[in-house]
Amino acid sequence: MTYCLGILLTSGLVMAADSRSNAGIDDFTSVYKLDLIDVPGKRVIVILSAGNLATTQSVITQLREYSDHGGPRDLHKVKTMYEAAKAVGDTLREVIARDGSYVAPYGSAAGSFIVGGQIAGEAPRLFQIYTAGNFIEASPRSRYLQLGETKYGKPILDRALRFDSPLDQAAKLALLSFDAAMRSDLSVAMPIDILRYEADSFCSTNRASLEKDDPYWSALRTAYGDGLAALVERLPPPPDWSA
Amino acid sequence: MTYCLGILLTSGLVMAADSRSNAGIDDFTSVYKLDLIDVPGKRVIVILSAGNLATTQSVITQLREYSDHGGPRDLHKVKTMYEAAKAVGDTLREVIARDGSYVAPYGSAAGSFIVGGQIAGEAPRLFQIYTAGNFIEASPRSRYLQLGETKYGKPILDRALRFDSPLDQAAKLALLSFDAAMRSDLSVAMPIDILRYEADSFCSTNRASLEKDDPYWSALRTAYGDGLAALVERLPPPPDWSA
Repeated sequence: MTYCLGILLTSGLVMAADSRSNAGIDDFTSVYKLDLIDVPGKRVIVILSAGNLATTQSVITQLREYSDHGGPRDLHKVKTMYEAAKAVGDTLREVIARDGSYVAPYGSAAGSFIVGGQIAGEAPRLFQIYTAGNFIEASPRSRYLQLGETKYGKPILDRALRFDSPLDQAAKLALLSFDAAMRSDLSVAMPIDILRYEADSFCSTNRASLEKDDPYWSALRTAYGDGLAALVERLPPPPDWSA
Repeated sequence: MTYCLGILLTSGLVMAADSRSNAGIDDFTSVYKLDLIDVPGKRVIVILSAGNLATTQSVITQLREYSDHGGPRDLHKVKTMYEAAKAVGDTLREVIARDGSYVAPYGSAAGSFIVGGQIAGEAPRLFQIYTAGNFIEASPRSRYLQLGETKYGKPILDRALRFDSPLDQAAKLALLSFDAAMRSDLSVAMPIDILRYEADSFCSTNRASLEKDDPYWSALRTAYGDGLAALVERLPPPPDWSA
């Protein structure tokens, strides 16, 4: 599987992806599922990928080639994040039209993406691109988007994430959401690539690849586990229903 | 969907089921998915059901008829919980053999069960019966079993439930696990039927059907939500990765 998460906030964006790719439990490797296109001071575009690795890599590489040679899908030039999402969707359609029927006998060529970022003149925006190439946009009401192994990591976001949560708070929640997914699904694994983007900064340097032994990651998990156990302990016990 | 959860503890068992049955989002109703066979002082057997309602109701009714007329699958007489699990599995096979091919053109006749309880002479035991009629048993290592919408409610159990958790603690965790499932899946819904069974009590009276406005349920959810938000707030923020 895969787990990718994009969070839209008044304060910016948190974008994160795991890095496991596998073709069966006896055949896995570590890949990049977070790609970044940026022009410092002007635009930051982050693309998270899930699905068939050949498909998603082709989409990213093709988009980079379009950017190198100009043209309508040049992510260095698109005027809005909506255009960026459309460029990803159109390129996905192109790759699936090229490879889909050849791949079908062996499995699915499907891929999907989360595209988040900010282009000068707009607020930060966040989109999810389906394998059909169409897409939806996040809003204050649906303020995060997920790909892949989405269920384990959802409750903590629904309970504690708000549209006006500070960026640091959202980054903690994103990592705890990944921890929930990784505890139950071996096909979601470290390192986690994570980027905190502060609205209107047009700067993408606050990012990291967290390995299993990362000290912050370890401290966060331990403190959360201990805190949760203590919290449940403090909650009122159920009444005696025999009475 | 459905959500059923059985927890095995040194201190006893917690058995719980939601009550929504649906055939499409425009056609749902409330049913019983927790059934109880007990002989006070001697045996308590709880059966949780998921899957095709016609199948699971037939299995339970057929088992009750076997019990009324004696015979090898009489749950009032089986000598071990293993035999009880086998009786449920065999009856499931019988019902699917009778109905399966007729149902196939319209959908799946599949059903599955969690069977937990205690028969005098044994410790409490917990089993999961698959639609093939075969089954597995819980242990200190895999101390809970789930049916249906299992993923949302799993992380909190993995983080906070231990084999030696007190019964009340486990009941709180079970309800929080249901809350997680219900927040994300409309096909899991109140009332929740829940039973706390204390080891060696051979008494099944500590049970309830919790409605949406149950005061304990409301208090638990509010206290947990507030406590979780405060906990996340207290966790250390991620370092500035630009540095």
